[in-house]
Amino acid sequence: MGETPADSVRDDDGDSPFDVFSRRCPSRVTLEHVTGRWGSLTLGALHESGARFNELRRRVDGVSEKMLSRTLHALERDGLVHREAQLTNPPRVDYELTALGREVTGRLMDLILLVEGRMPEVIEAQDRYDAAREA
Amino acid sequence: MGETPADSVRDDDGDSPFDVFSRRCPSRVTLEHVTGRWGSLTLGALHESGARFNELRRRVDGVSEKMLSRTLHALERDGLVHREAQLTNPPRVDYELTALGREVTGRLMDLILLVEGRMPEVIEAQDRYDAAREA
Repeated sequence: MGETPADSVRDDDGDSPFDVFSRRCPSRVTLEHVTGRWGSLTLGALHESGARFNELRRRVDGVSEKMLSRTLHALERDGLVHREAQLTNPPRVDYELTALGREVTGRLMDLILLVEGRMPEVIEAQDRYDAAREA
Repeated sequence: MGETPADSVRDDDGDSPFDVFSRRCPSRVTLEHVTGRWGSLTLGALHESGARFNELRRRVDGVSEKMLSRTLHALERDGLVHREAQLTNPPRVDYELTALGREVTGRLMDLILLVEGRMPEVIEAQDRYDAAREA
């Protein structure tokens, strides 16, 4: 049970030079785009099908216009979301996942579905924790 | 391409009453504990083995004492992390994943490893995006 240096956390998967546990690694920023409150819900909302901005706003219940716009730009810059402006009248903009975005979102949805499915256990744990604090 | 109501995003997985896309669902809060900046890294740092507080602080490069403490409490309350105070002198506190925490962290690590492995593609996309903006 000696002290473990930070870099030894990842000894078993040395196949990538990127390491989210390292504070300066760019993968940490991208992970935050993917898993951040609005990033994860925006990717999830695009999982089934592409959508226009206002459709996305409805799917991601509670997101503001500003935050959705900022989130979509970050995901587009990371190559996870494709933005397509249609030259129609009125003009419209569609968003959809790229191939990389679909792969990342697949893993994200696995996590989301697991968390949703285990919420009864989570709520039991929360009740136990709160009861122990009140005792 | 009609408008899609918020609740239709999840039509294909109606096996859980919990839905992170709904702003009042408690699963959204738990997902944020799991995927938040420090939550995801703390779970990931406990993936290989349990650790004491100061060990965790080193593994999660850049986290403050206050944020790590807050993160661990939220994860403990959700039933994902087990906190064990040892009656030694000096006293020590160990943290480890619960069975549920190991399951959730397994999915989370799948996502983290995918993101780390695809960072070369992400960085290429970022360079293309930035070059197009400068042009």
